[in-house]
Amino acid sequence: INMLAMICVRSCAAVMGCRAATCVRSVHSFSGITVAQIDEEVAKLLELKARLGGDDGKHQFVLKTAKGTRDYNPKQMAIREKVFNTIISCFKRHGAETIDTPVFELKETLTGKYGEDSKLIYDLKDQGGELLSLRYDLTVPFARYLAMNKITNIKRYHIAKVYRRDNPAMTRGRYREFYQCDFDIAGQYDAMIPDAECLKIVYEILHELDLGDFRIKVNDRRILDGMFAVCGVPDDKFRTICSTVDKLDKMSWEDVKKEMVNEKGLSEQAADQIGEYVSMQGGMDLAEHLLQDQKMSQSKQACAGLSDIKLLFSYLQLFQVTDKVVFDLSLARGLDYYTGVIYEAVLTQAGVASVTTEAQNGAPGSTEESVSVGSVAGGGRYDGLVGMFDPKGRKVPCVGVSIGIERIFSIMEQKAEVSAEKVRTTEVQVMVASAQKNLLEERLKLTAELWNAGIKAEVMYKKNPKLLSQLQHCEESGIPLVAILGEQELKDGVVKLRVVATREEVSHTVDIHTAPHLRTI
Amino acid sequence: INMLAMICVRSCAAVMGCRAATCVRSVHSFSGITVAQIDEEVAKLLELKARLGGDDGKHQFVLKTAKGTRDYNPKQMAIREKVFNTIISCFKRHGAETIDTPVFELKETLTGKYGEDSKLIYDLKDQGGELLSLRYDLTVPFARYLAMNKITNIKRYHIAKVYRRDNPAMTRGRYREFYQCDFDIAGQYDAMIPDAECLKIVYEILHELDLGDFRIKVNDRRILDGMFAVCGVPDDKFRTICSTVDKLDKMSWEDVKKEMVNEKGLSEQAADQIGEYVSMQGGMDLAEHLLQDQKMSQSKQACAGLSDIKLLFSYLQLFQVTDKVVFDLSLARGLDYYTGVIYEAVLTQAGVASVTTEAQNGAPGSTEESVSVGSVAGGGRYDGLVGMFDPKGRKVPCVGVSIGIERIFSIMEQKAEVSAEKVRTTEVQVMVASAQKNLLEERLKLTAELWNAGIKAEVMYKKNPKLLSQLQHCEESGIPLVAILGEQELKDGVVKLRVVATREEVSHTVDIHTAPHLRTI
Repeated sequence: INMLAMICVRSCAAVMGCRAATCVRSVHSFSGITVAQIDEEVAKLLELKARLGGDDGKHQFVLKTAKGTRDYNPKQMAIREKVFNTIISCFKRHGAETIDTPVFELKETLTGKYGEDSKLIYDLKDQGGELLSLRYDLTVPFARYLAMNKITNIKRYHIAKVYRRDNPAMTRGRYREFYQCDFDIAGQYDAMIPDAECLKIVYEILHELDLGDFRIKVNDRRILDGMFAVCGVPDDKFRTICSTVDKLDKMSWEDVKKEMVNEKGLSEQAADQIGEYVSMQGGMDLAEHLLQDQKMSQSKQACAGLSDIKLLFSYLQLFQVTDKVVFDLSLARGLDYYTGVIYEAVLTQAGVASVTTEAQNGAPGSTEESVSVGSVAGGGRYDGLVGMFDPKGRKVPCVGVSIGIERIFSIMEQKAEVSAEKVRTTEVQVMVASAQKNLLEERLKLTAELWNAGIKAEVMYKKNPKLLSQLQHCEESGIPLVAILGEQELKDGVVKLRVVATREEVSHTVDIHTAPHLRTI
Repeated sequence: INMLAMICVRSCAAVMGCRAATCVRSVHSFSGITVAQIDEEVAKLLELKARLGGDDGKHQFVLKTAKGTRDYNPKQMAIREKVFNTIISCFKRHGAETIDTPVFELKETLTGKYGEDSKLIYDLKDQGGELLSLRYDLTVPFARYLAMNKITNIKRYHIAKVYRRDNPAMTRGRYREFYQCDFDIAGQYDAMIPDAECLKIVYEILHELDLGDFRIKVNDRRILDGMFAVCGVPDDKFRTICSTVDKLDKMSWEDVKKEMVNEKGLSEQAADQIGEYVSMQGGMDLAEHLLQDQKMSQSKQACAGLSDIKLLFSYLQLFQVTDKVVFDLSLARGLDYYTGVIYEAVLTQAGVASVTTEAQNGAPGSTEESVSVGSVAGGGRYDGLVGMFDPKGRKVPCVGVSIGIERIFSIMEQKAEVSAEKVRTTEVQVMVASAQKNLLEERLKLTAELWNAGIKAEVMYKKNPKLLSQLQHCEESGIPLVAILGEQELKDGVVKLRVVATREEVSHTVDIHTAPHLRTI
């Protein structure tokens, strides 16, 4: 098949006028060819075309970014910078260092860490040498880094892009390339203290970003597993039932129950018992209540988890964040590597719901208000992950949180669009302009002096720009001051300094070292 | 062969105890197998092993980053942050906006842009859908971005990682994953003004980073092409001869000439004439001299380039940077897309030569001092690239510069190691400690108050840490202050504030809003 297809590619390439479609049709007439093979041959053809060049240098290929990815324009970058600064300030306030790891890892480093989601990993083509994959999150590379460098305690943040071959939903801030902002504490410490700090950090960041009201749901993998055990879920079904419970933020309990019973083969009775528990929400009181619960208290695991939840809440009280934290037994989180406390933050204001709900383009009458607006942060404890990388299996307990920055960007962008305030994309303080012709040299010289003095300055790259176009540029890009050169001013040894907003003008001596207005802006 | 190897892989995988080496030996006994094939089969074997899991959860896979890549530890990140801040400040001072593009592009976007270097592009595996490649530089994605969004003028910087399947030489700061810091000006402007600003930026950055003395070499593609024409190089050999000239910074003229004559089939006479020109260095005077040169002046292209070099130098004088800029006819630069002025900055101090020269581990007596220390910045004008992406071939003239940040990191890291000064990896201002047992709650409460007041504070994650270990942590990580809680202090409503360096102690009331020392540090 491959040979035949290759011949087809060659013959097509030979006939310059041939369009890819013709070629595909002829391939299609052979039996037993798969769609993937056709795609491959089409791609080869297109590549050949590109190499041959189009007719008279014009190119026919599609001008786009890869599926599920996007460019950031200067306005988006300005918003991104602001959000990052808020988050990084918080991480630094909590004493975190930062590290960076490569965008790709050995394929085997990622193998067996993500359960069913492994199919979403991007692999690199085998071009000889090592088999590589793009990172799927920052947690596994972090664990690899700790094991590789034999680091037993560190508090670090890492902000970088990760890659998932998921179905993108870009209007809701879901991409195939997206940023993660992770903060993790690794080390053998006393129970729940670092865990409480992670929640404090989520609280501070969401509060400072001013995205509206939010809730932080908390649960514990041990409570979930204990609950499954006492409800009669067979051991080998814990994980799969757990991932069904995880869908409760998007599906009704009825549908979740159906999946458990019909698809996963759980008994109706077990499902109903789970249903009772996962409807429970509360605080420290709920943890105390469940420690007395006849059934739940039979599980040692569950009791350990519940005691830790109690302890966690006592620290959260000291950190003054209990008003937003809720112990929620329906919180499951998909990833395999969590071993203890897990948490997830959601925005609860209706204002942002329309940006992020699934129901956005749904049928009329869909229950939009009941749909979760999506998580903006999540994390938990993963005490076993580093040990998976250590040759001797030595464990390094870890707890961390990941800020869902892309959703936050989407919300901030929407806010910026709605608001009347203009987003500046540069920080230029002064534009060096001229009112007359033939003053390019003087403009360049003054601009260089400003740069040398550390002042952010711009000059138009034209020999004789019109004053109006120079002033227009200032208004468009929000430059507050214009230094205007004219022949009279040059004779007098001054520049006219104009405030763009008020059109106020003052004369200053040209020596910028004595021009206080320029130096203090 | 492939079938045999596959059988070998399968049989090896079946016998769990089998080590990869045994398998490789058995493959080796077949004739006609290449090393690349063996590597491939070994990689498959290792992947299989990883999938099967090791014995009792211990994993045998290699703990490493992919070839040619590295992690950045917190110390390296602190240095990186400092360098980035210097560079970004400069870009912002010159009024640049910033954009970001995805790490991978459609494969066809990169096709035909890099000449011979295309073989170094990383492709992603075809997992269905579009064929993708990791970006090779930031210039081609920038051109794609401009064409796609129909942007005709912008001044932007972009700092991001790019990927090349090159032979890594990591001790000299050459990686397969590395940062580029690009500044580009796109738009139809008057000649040489934006070009001069790019050189001014290189000058400012290298000056501020304080890496020692440097030179910025300048040339023009049109001068090179004109020179080749008047020296009798056939048209179709311009590019290949140009890439040989490009090796003059690493090879002697004799070797370059040999390559031209023996490998590229150039006449000895033509090579000698080129040899005369490429030995020339100077400033505006040299450009004037060559405009009068009997041979060179026959080429219209060369004359256009030489006139522009003259104009460029006049602007560089206004920018006060001519002391470091030299017009050098041997500068060629490899990339296909340059159309006008090109430039490259090199460090000239012997102090850094040992870090970056090829001769580092060379034979005794190798002429180390004559070897270039490598470029730390480079760029040029590429007026045709955006047009390659535009469906109607509309051109957007561009000029830009790329800062070779990895070499700069290497040098800065070496400097930091040599210097006695300790690099701090966090910015923590105060550690909340206790002198007695059972004060965890009080420590957590005070720490939260400090965080809420915007103060960078840390607390140990232990119920009862020893005072000594708390103080030691401060000394190790350079935290300047400790707030020490004790029972007496709590009774008195104060905290003891200790300056770590001098061991000086003062008492302060616990209400941090009235504790000026804490608020002003």
